[in-house]
This record gives sequence, C-alpha cells and structure tokens, in this order.
Amino acid sequence: MKAAYARAGHIEVDVADNPVPGFGQVLVRPLACGICGSDLHVLEMQASMPEQLPPIIPGHEFVGELIDYGPHCERRLPLGTAVTSVPYLDTAEGPQLLGLSPSAPGALAQRMVLQESRLVAVPDGSVARELIALAEPLAVGAHAVAAAGMRERDVALVVGCGPVGLAVIAALRAAGHGPVVASDFSPRRRELAERLGADVIVDPAETSPYTAWSELAGPALPPSPLLGAGQHANTVIFECVGVPGVLSTICESALPHTRIVVVGVCMQPDTFTPAIANTKELSFHYVFAYQTEEFATAVTWIAEGAIDIAPIVTAKLPLGDTARAFTQLRSPDGHGKILITAE
Amino acid sequence: MKAAYARAGHIEVDVADNPVPGFGQVLVRPLACGICGSDLHVLEMQASMPEQLPPIIPGHEFVGELIDYGPHCERRLPLGTAVTSVPYLDTAEGPQLLGLSPSAPGALAQRMVLQESRLVAVPDGSVARELIALAEPLAVGAHAVAAAGMRERDVALVVGCGPVGLAVIAALRAAGHGPVVASDFSPRRRELAERLGADVIVDPAETSPYTAWSELAGPALPPSPLLGAGQHANTVIFECVGVPGVLSTICESALPHTRIVVVGVCMQPDTFTPAIANTKELSFHYVFAYQTEEFATAVTWIAEGAIDIAPIVTAKLPLGDTARAFTQLRSPDGHGKILITAE
Repeated sequence: MKAAYARAGHIEVDVADNPVPGFGQVLVRPLACGICGSDLHVLEMQASMPEQLPPIIPGHEFVGELIDYGPHCERRLPLGTAVTSVPYLDTAEGPQLLGLSPSAPGALAQRMVLQESRLVAVPDGSVARELIALAEPLAVGAHAVAAAGMRERDVALVVGCGPVGLAVIAALRAAGHGPVVASDFSPRRRELAERLGADVIVDPAETSPYTAWSELAGPALPPSPLLGAGQHANTVIFECVGVPGVLSTICESALPHTRIVVVGVCMQPDTFTPAIANTKELSFHYVFAYQTEEFATAVTWIAEGAIDIAPIVTAKLPLGDTARAFTQLRSPDGHGKILITAE
Repeated sequence: MKAAYARAGHIEVDVADNPVPGFGQVLVRPLACGICGSDLHVLEMQASMPEQLPPIIPGHEFVGELIDYGPHCERRLPLGTAVTSVPYLDTAEGPQLLGLSPSAPGALAQRMVLQESRLVAVPDGSVARELIALAEPLAVGAHAVAAAGMRERDVALVVGCGPVGLAVIAALRAAGHGPVVASDFSPRRRELAERLGADVIVDPAETSPYTAWSELAGPALPPSPLLGAGQHANTVIFECVGVPGVLSTICESALPHTRIVVVGVCMQPDTFTPAIANTKELSFHYVFAYQTEEFATAVTWIAEGAIDIAPIVTAKLPLGDTARAFTQLRSPDGHGKILITAE
C-alpha cells in the first residue's frame, strides 16, 4: 500500500507493507482524513530532533470502510460499513494515540488497523461520508461546550476561528446554544465562522470583540465583593487560540463571573495578573480532547445534519498530495480543514 | 472619641469627632476588630503615594454593641444588642467599603456608623462575643468552599495557612467536608491548622504536600484525552498564598481534573505554562470576598460553636496599641489573627 510518512520533519508518500489486524482488531480502508494542528506539531518536533524521533504515519481524524476482521472479533458490522473511531489503538505498550505514535499508524494510508471495540458505525444518511472525518475535531468542540455548563441565555464569545474555534461554534449551534460572537483576524476564517452559524462576527483589528459580546450580555455588573446570589453574568468565553497573551487580554476584558473555557493549548510560558481574575471572580476551565460519548455525539450530529459542517473543508487533496497539504497549512489563515481523500 | 488612623503609611491613634449616624444608619461601639492583610496593603499604598492617598480609619472585621439609632430607622433590635455587618456603608458616592475608604470609617475606633439594613444580630450563645469579629474572614473561607462545589469523598489541599487558609480549613470543617491536607512553611501556622481541624499537616520544606494529598485521593488517573465519564479525580486545591509561582507549582503537581479555588490574591504578574493545565483538564475558580448569605452563615457557625475558631486569635491588644499590632503583622509567620479590643 501507499502511506504518507512524517519523517525527520517532512512528509513523504511511500510504499509500505499492508498492516495486519491483531486480536480484536479490524482492517479499514481510509476514505478521508483531516490534518490537525498536532500533526503539524509532530513535524516541527521531528525537525528539531531528527535523530531521536522515529517516522510515523499521521492521521487521527478519519472515516473509512471496514474491509476485514482480525482474529477473535465479534463481527457485528457487515464488511463495507463506513466506520470511524476514537483515535486509540491497543498495543503491547498499552493504548496508543493513532497517527501520533509509531506503534499506532494513522489514516494517511491506503489501509489502517482499528480496534473493533471502539468502532463507531456511520449512520445511513444523506451527508457525504467523508465529512465524518470531521467528527474528531467536532468532538473537541462538543467537549468544550460541555465543560462550559451552558445555560439558557448564555452569551458565548469564541476567540479564534481556526479549526478548533469553528468546531466550538458548530457544537454550540448543534446543541442549540447562543447567541454566539466570533472573533478572528483572518477574513477567510470570519467567513467560515458565519457559515457555521455565529451570530456576530468581529474583526479584532477593527473593533473589540469583548464590546460586541458585552452588549449582547446586557448591562455589565460592576466588580463587587458583595454580589448577591443570582446576579452572576451570563457570559462564556471560549479561548481557541493558544498563544501567550490571550489569557491576559481575556482577564482584562471579560465581564465579572464569566466562565472561560480554554480549548487552545499554549505550550509556551504565559503571563497574567491573577488579582484581576480574583476581583472579577472569573473561572478558567482547561480542556483537552473529549470523551468517548462526545465523539459518538459528534458523529451523529454530522450524519443527521444537525449542523452543516461542510464549509469547514476548504480543500480536498489525494493521498499523494499530502506533503502539499501540510505546506499549505503552515500558513493556516487561508484554510479551515484540508481533507486527504482515498486515491 | 479615640480612633486609629492609617495616615501616610503609619498608624496613629488620635482624637476624632464622634461619628453621627445618617438616615437608616446606626451608631455602634466596636468591641473587637481583626486586622486583615488588606489593611496592611493600605499602609503600603499610602507609604508609596503619601501625597495622594487620604487618611482612613481601618477595620472591617468587627463586632460591636448597638448604642443608638439615626433618623428613619426601623429599630427592630434593642439597644445593647451585639451586632456585626458586611463591611459596606451607603454614602453620597454609593456603597463604600468600611475601613478601606475615607468616606466609610472602620471599626478601629471607639464609635462607628453602620447601615441598619445590613446589621446581623449576634445570636445569644456561650461563645465569647469578640470572636464574632472573625465572621468576616471566615465568610471568605465559606465562599471559597462554596465555589469548590465540594462533593462527598473530595480530598482538599489547603496551600498556605495564613488567616485565609485557616478560614478555609475552618469552613471545610464547619460544612462537614474532608479529609483536609494543609501545608505551610511556618510551624506556628501548621499548629493553628491542626487546631482548626486539618487532618494531615505538611511542612513543604520537608515533604511535598501534593504527595500526601494524592495518597489520600487514591490512585491517580493518568492524564488521558479519553477519560470516561465519572472517572474524574475527587481532588480540590485551595490556593491561599497569592504570590507569583504558586499557580505554576499547582499546575505541575495537581492530579488530573482537580478543581483549584484561587483565594489568594496575587497582584504581581505571574507566569505558568497553560498546556499543562489543558492536558490535566484542571479548572481554576478565582474568588473574592463573599456573598451576604455566606457572611450570615459564618456568624452562625461561630455563635453556635460549629467550629472552634478561637485558636486563630494569637493576640489581643487594646485600641491604643494598634500601631504595635500592625508592626507585628509585618512578619506574619508568628500570627494567626490579632484582635484589637475596646478600651
């Protein structure tokens, strides 16, 4: 088979042996696979430590066709079923992240192995099957929305409309929450935010997204040490950028009692003044990935058309062009999600 | 009357005019008043800007005797009743913090004015009335515990056992929560933590408080992007120090899914790596002061003996010795709370 290898910081499409499913595993033919920021991060890590980091086959946002069962399977799904899965494979070293570990090759290949017990069958429906590859990033959004504990009349601000921010907007819409204010410097991303259902879209270079959001939230409560019960602000912020400085701006700009869900993952040291968060009684809920049930919910949302997720896909390229897709995503402003499709 | 003035960074006990209660206000004779970290902070601010900051009479943690009513009062309590109040006074400029604003003189005086509508009568009981002055800091603890959303079997770690940490320990005990691990570098404060009901007391210079706490919490869950529902750790940390670096240590040391209540108020810029909080799905609940109901609860806890708060008081000094009390609190390791009593 052909597979895209991330090797010493580069993507190379190469010939590989067909994988063989082990006990309780299945063989799958990937139909479509999204590329994630963490895939780009793997390349950067490899480039900085080319000797230490082994090659891997990326791809953990996928949909495929079930084509064979390994030994000791329950065989509940007919061959040919469209399936996806949370990106975990059981290995001798324990569960490994698919497409992010050398012992769990990902979906950027003509064949891959999945765990039968984790298969999620794609419900029959009118949606293009390849959009199910977006269930994984959408589950990240569903998880963030669950962490926010959304209540009726909560006003949400989504800071940053890359794939994560767009997934949050889509999940807010699918779960019936709003109004949603969205903010991004990129015109393309603002356009995507609108197509996914954001009510107010702000260019932060022109106007403060916090102002638009505060106006929707109604009169701001003054910071007070003696807020009466029930006077909390109905305000939520989703931080979907993950670079130093954003949390500090949020502290300074948020209304009192705002719940802040931090979905962006900032790997550099970040500085802020905690006292500002105290006097406003802010809460920060740091989240990561999702739970199995949230992944299944995301599959259902897409399959049943609860949201039109298609606009997130700004390009489709065949497996042979995977290197080109990674290159395009290095200047991500022009893109939502690129799907790599089967050849 | 005599009153203690904070003036240009110094405490001076001086003669002052008796205050006159306005519409809906009452005259009170303070019986006891605690000194708070924010009072020390006022002195520091005055010392750094002696020209700009006017003198004030501090004191917002108090109990007193109701001795007269101003005009237009409802007069529900008999004169002579022991009373306290949330530290707010209505003025021409709106509600002002008692003892922290020049237009709302505090309880470090022989007379003070309070708002009748905010009076809390001290229930009859065997407790020494002057301990009711501790209701204010205890309310801070009650508020922090409420913000933690404590559940059965939650294991609490209190980082820092100054007056705020001790109030959190007392409030955890009064509300029936535990076990409680407490940590402080000061032997005196560790002794106070034990007397207030902490189960495990750790000297962080000798051993990690996070280890003792993790052992009580049971086997730690590994950080995982796919935690199943209901597998969250039963762990809570109360940050009661408020200096740079503590939040970063907590990020690195906390078990996954820990709720962190930030009660300490760090006014300097602080640095941490957010990604660590993401991968552990930590949440940070910044709190400040308390709500009116929590203040009333704290009064009841003390009056009814739900907790023995007396050990927090490590010294009592008369009003004339207020300057000495402030000086002693500048090296706070030796003290819980100093009460200034009526002369």
